[in-house]
Amino acid sequence: MSLPFFYTPTITAGSKELVLHEDTSRHIVQVLRMQNEEQLQLTDGLGNLFTAKITDNNKKACSVNILTVQQLPLLQQSVTIAISLVKNNSRFEWFLEKATEIGVAEIVPLICSRTEKQHFKYERMNNILISAMLQSQQARLPVLHEPVKFADYLIRSSAVQSENKFIAHCEDESNKVSLPVNRTHTASTILIGSEGDFTKDEIALALKHNYIPVSLGETRLRTETAGIVSAVLLVSAKSNN
Amino acid sequence: MSLPFFYTPTITAGSKELVLHEDTSRHIVQVLRMQNEEQLQLTDGLGNLFTAKITDNNKKACSVNILTVQQLPLLQQSVTIAISLVKNNSRFEWFLEKATEIGVAEIVPLICSRTEKQHFKYERMNNILISAMLQSQQARLPVLHEPVKFADYLIRSSAVQSENKFIAHCEDESNKVSLPVNRTHTASTILIGSEGDFTKDEIALALKHNYIPVSLGETRLRTETAGIVSAVLLVSAKSNN
Repeated sequence: MSLPFFYTPTITAGSKELVLHEDTSRHIVQVLRMQNEEQLQLTDGLGNLFTAKITDNNKKACSVNILTVQQLPLLQQSVTIAISLVKNNSRFEWFLEKATEIGVAEIVPLICSRTEKQHFKYERMNNILISAMLQSQQARLPVLHEPVKFADYLIRSSAVQSENKFIAHCEDESNKVSLPVNRTHTASTILIGSEGDFTKDEIALALKHNYIPVSLGETRLRTETAGIVSAVLLVSAKSNN
Repeated sequence: MSLPFFYTPTITAGSKELVLHEDTSRHIVQVLRMQNEEQLQLTDGLGNLFTAKITDNNKKACSVNILTVQQLPLLQQSVTIAISLVKNNSRFEWFLEKATEIGVAEIVPLICSRTEKQHFKYERMNNILISAMLQSQQARLPVLHEPVKFADYLIRSSAVQSENKFIAHCEDESNKVSLPVNRTHTASTILIGSEGDFTKDEIALALKHNYIPVSLGETRLRTETAGIVSAVLLVSAKSNN
């Protein structure tokens, strides 16, 4: 995959020819100075990888013909990280980039009792995911959700039965297990708290919703680091299925 | 460990009283406005945690009495990350912060054939490690080495027998294994290449020095991300010892 690679959400598996978005066209024609007949790759972010040939290198509306389409296999593990927003935006953005590189499937920004920051620029955040997907040569864009209140997310997620559910917290508790654990599903969700951890009430509520308390190791991690550590441990884990 | 926490490399296990460094004194007295008789914690970065009481809150030379000293246990795994420098300094600094939080024991900046950036500000980098150690409430400072050429590091490390040695690279190779792997030692070193990967010659040289080729997962990772992913997988792995 060493051809130039672009995200084109409007492309469909049956597409034969396509006029690319203005920004993409400008990049291809003005920055990369690509010519007619040159090849590039496109993805819909849904797992499809298209190889295409430029037919009209118009700098505002570059046309391409689709030559081949290939569906990339799903990662073995489907991992959702539900994580508190943090005060420092660049730390959250760093988390988004790394989680995408590692191959997380879904990201749910949480608003917890101790979450200080609540505003969230969806488009900017999603663009970070797109860049990281292209950079790491993947064809699946993680699903980025709008921020949701912790209790609302527990209710929403309680309908999903076919996944392992974890909560990472720092309270001493004898029943905590260490990741990676044996798991019965290939899908899993983990809750990561804000600076200052989840409150005792939040932990109790999560346990009531069948979340399993886990430890992420022997050191105390920042929120965004805990998000990445759990992404690595869950994506790389072998399931028992 | 909720008392204010400082790094004091000059403290020794037998210290009874101590005059703190000017910067630390100013922080304690002028920023935190701490008073005589108030308590704080100090570490030598070598695993010792001291609880101390302020006896003279002089803003340039704050004196303390040591009340207790406690030696914190070593992490189960001793992990060395030998990693190429990267062009973008902030990405390397981010790696240093996260590797420290996760509990890496040693960091060796490598100069490989494809390493573009070769200058390295030791003091600035080491200060990032100190901040991350204090932030994550640990009492062991990772050992940060000066940058070393790839081939020289292989020669230097070949004297060490009692550890697992890995090299992470992106070349297709049927004999690569996935981390975490079964390991016979509690110490391990992993080599992480530059943007554009190690050269074939570098990989061959590492194999000759008994490094085991490993894969870090199904996605293609940036250098600094590969460093963190391998840190997580090695620190969290159970050894067979």
